Amino acid sequence: MSTVDADRPETTFPKIVPPDEQAHRQAVARHAQLTKPAGSLGRLEELGVWISACQGTCPPRPFARPRVVLFAGDHGVAAEGVSAYPSEVTEQMVTNFLTGGAAVNVAATNADATVRVVDIAVATDTPSLIAAHKVRRSSGAINREDALSEAETTAAIAAGRAIADEEIDGGADLLIAGDMGIGNTTVSAVLIAALTDTEPVAVVGRGTGIDDAGWMRKAAVIRDALRRARPVAGDPLALLRVAGGADIAAVSGFLAQAAARRTPVLLDGLAVGAAALIAEELAPNARKWWLAGHRSAEPAHALVLDQLDLTPLLDLGMRLGEGAGALAALPLLTLSCRVLAEMATFEEAGVTGPTSD
Amino acid sequence: MSTVDADRPETTFPKIVPPDEQAHRQAVARHAQLTKPAGSLGRLEELGVWISACQGTCPPRPFARPRVVLFAGDHGVAAEGVSAYPSEVTEQMVTNFLTGGAAVNVAATNADATVRVVDIAVATDTPSLIAAHKVRRSSGAINREDALSEAETTAAIAAGRAIADEEIDGGADLLIAGDMGIGNTTVSAVLIAALTDTEPVAVVGRGTGIDDAGWMRKAAVIRDALRRARPVAGDPLALLRVAGGADIAAVSGFLAQAAARRTPVLLDGLAVGAAALIAEELAPNARKWWLAGHRSAEPAHALVLDQLDLTPLLDLGMRLGEGAGALAALPLLTLSCRVLAEMATFEEAGVTGPTSD
Repeated sequence: MSTVDADRPETTFPKIVPPDEQAHRQAVARHAQLTKPAGSLGRLEELGVWISACQGTCPPRPFARPRVVLFAGDHGVAAEGVSAYPSEVTEQMVTNFLTGGAAVNVAATNADATVRVVDIAVATDTPSLIAAHKVRRSSGAINREDALSEAETTAAIAAGRAIADEEIDGGADLLIAGDMGIGNTTVSAVLIAALTDTEPVAVVGRGTGIDDAGWMRKAAVIRDALRRARPVAGDPLALLRVAGGADIAAVSGFLAQAAARRTPVLLDGLAVGAAALIAEELAPNARKWWLAGHRSAEPAHALVLDQLDLTPLLDLGMRLGEGAGALAALPLLTLSCRVLAEMATFEEAGVTGPTSD
Repeated sequence: MSTVDADRPETTFPKIVPPDEQAHRQAVARHAQLTKPAGSLGRLEELGVWISACQGTCPPRPFARPRVVLFAGDHGVAAEGVSAYPSEVTEQMVTNFLTGGAAVNVAATNADATVRVVDIAVATDTPSLIAAHKVRRSSGAINREDALSEAETTAAIAAGRAIADEEIDGGADLLIAGDMGIGNTTVSAVLIAALTDTEPVAVVGRGTGIDDAGWMRKAAVIRDALRRARPVAGDPLALLRVAGGADIAAVSGFLAQAAARRTPVLLDGLAVGAAALIAEELAPNARKWWLAGHRSAEPAHALVLDQLDLTPLLDLGMRLGEGAGALAALPLLTLSCRVLAEMATFEEAGVTGPTSD
């Protein structure tokens, strides 16, 4: 099965064109004219240059509609005792997102972003407002069965693509994917281990904060799921079907489509990272449109960042998901744009430039 | 000369009382009730706990008036060719600050903070609006003469204290000190090397971006100044007089007084770090009221963070000064307060807590 199979248009992405080189060069040149020593804002300068290139213009425009899409989905492995919380928490947290009481809501408000919740595979029924893209109730327990059927895999990726299109058509000019689903760090760890050829023990994290007994159960589930996953690790669609989940598949479609639509993405932690590895397989060079918001405390996340060659902005020991790590980093991205747009040049301010000796 | 000399009230600080333990405990307990896995927000949780303790209340109040004070001052060593820019840039940048075109202005706006500029020792005359606390025109060239007289040292520390008092009395509830002064990384490196007993070569950075010849001139100046500084390294007032500067002395008074007034401070980079080492000598445990906004690209800054046992929030290769690194980190601090104040508890949201197995 090929990812460029003309018979599967839902999972076939156009060739990804990188951000604009000319705007990149203009932004680099503008940084040299602003009233600060060249390079003295470090990575903030690179960020502004990248956003200029993504927008194809310098200075960059302020973000009009930074947007978080929270992909909610349950996982059969939750019944194996891999989490400190029961599966019902996924649905309860969806309600919490809708009423504004979760970390993602607070972090979005703090960064002037807005949040959309989508039910991709919550185990129970949710309000129709958020269930339009629902693929199934929970994904299969990947330590002993496939997560999805082939048709569900395609449908989930198509859902993520459609959601990206809806958001971009609605004016979103910076996208963040968030995740909510009890058991999803187990699934993410399996996908990451399969895609980076890593031993199980190196990817098992504490997730929601499991104790030692839970960690051992989680390690066993990951080991069993990896036995099922390794044979199909070279085929991203088969991997999602055998050892993924509808929510992760949807995020991968969302991330790949954002790149296809030339819209920058701020990546969050482990679950989004697993989806990003898949998306980069589905749409090579999609990663040129992504920035790593933070490094998660989950051990497997470092493998994602290495594989995608992304350097995180923050390293604060966060491990929540929900897009919270990306949102914590968003004000840095906003600042980097404002620096290019709002600072005075040496000429405008009448400041003497550096001596050339 | 003692720092608790009753004959020198301007430089004698009261015993620093650490942030409130009870509010600290309340904030830790509240974090465990919020709808997220315990500890999953990593350092953001610690930040919110610290602000609660500083304010003596949980949840913390949103910052009413986060305030940057930019301390401008010239240094005689600038004439030795230690910077990529001439001394006149200090005055020009002061004008740029006042008209809003500098990085600090953009970063303050981005973080909802406001900026005050004070001329402590600019080489030329500045508007009287900002010169009320001026100590002298430029500080001495510390490789061959004292930076200040004993009276000027005391006056500069008193100026910083008075400015902190003015700001806190005016409602500032989070303070940031910024610096502007061509040559000030040379002076800062000397102070840091003296206070941490470090060899000159380990503290010489590129500052504004000097070339190799400039680096060698800067290293020679630092070496010569350190010969003058080492004999008085045990006495912070003498050290400021012999090898400091009026601006650094003022910042040290500002930082120490903020702690005495129980007002949290977000520290910036190298120059503020040098002043912070002095302030911690003048007012032991003042550092309990400080948070490190970032790690500067300047090599000597790591020595400051080690000595004060502070872990920076950001590490983005910044080396501008102006308070820009602290301002880049401020939205994280704001977010940490909002998390404690605005997130729903498990009980409020009807979310099942962790299983206890």
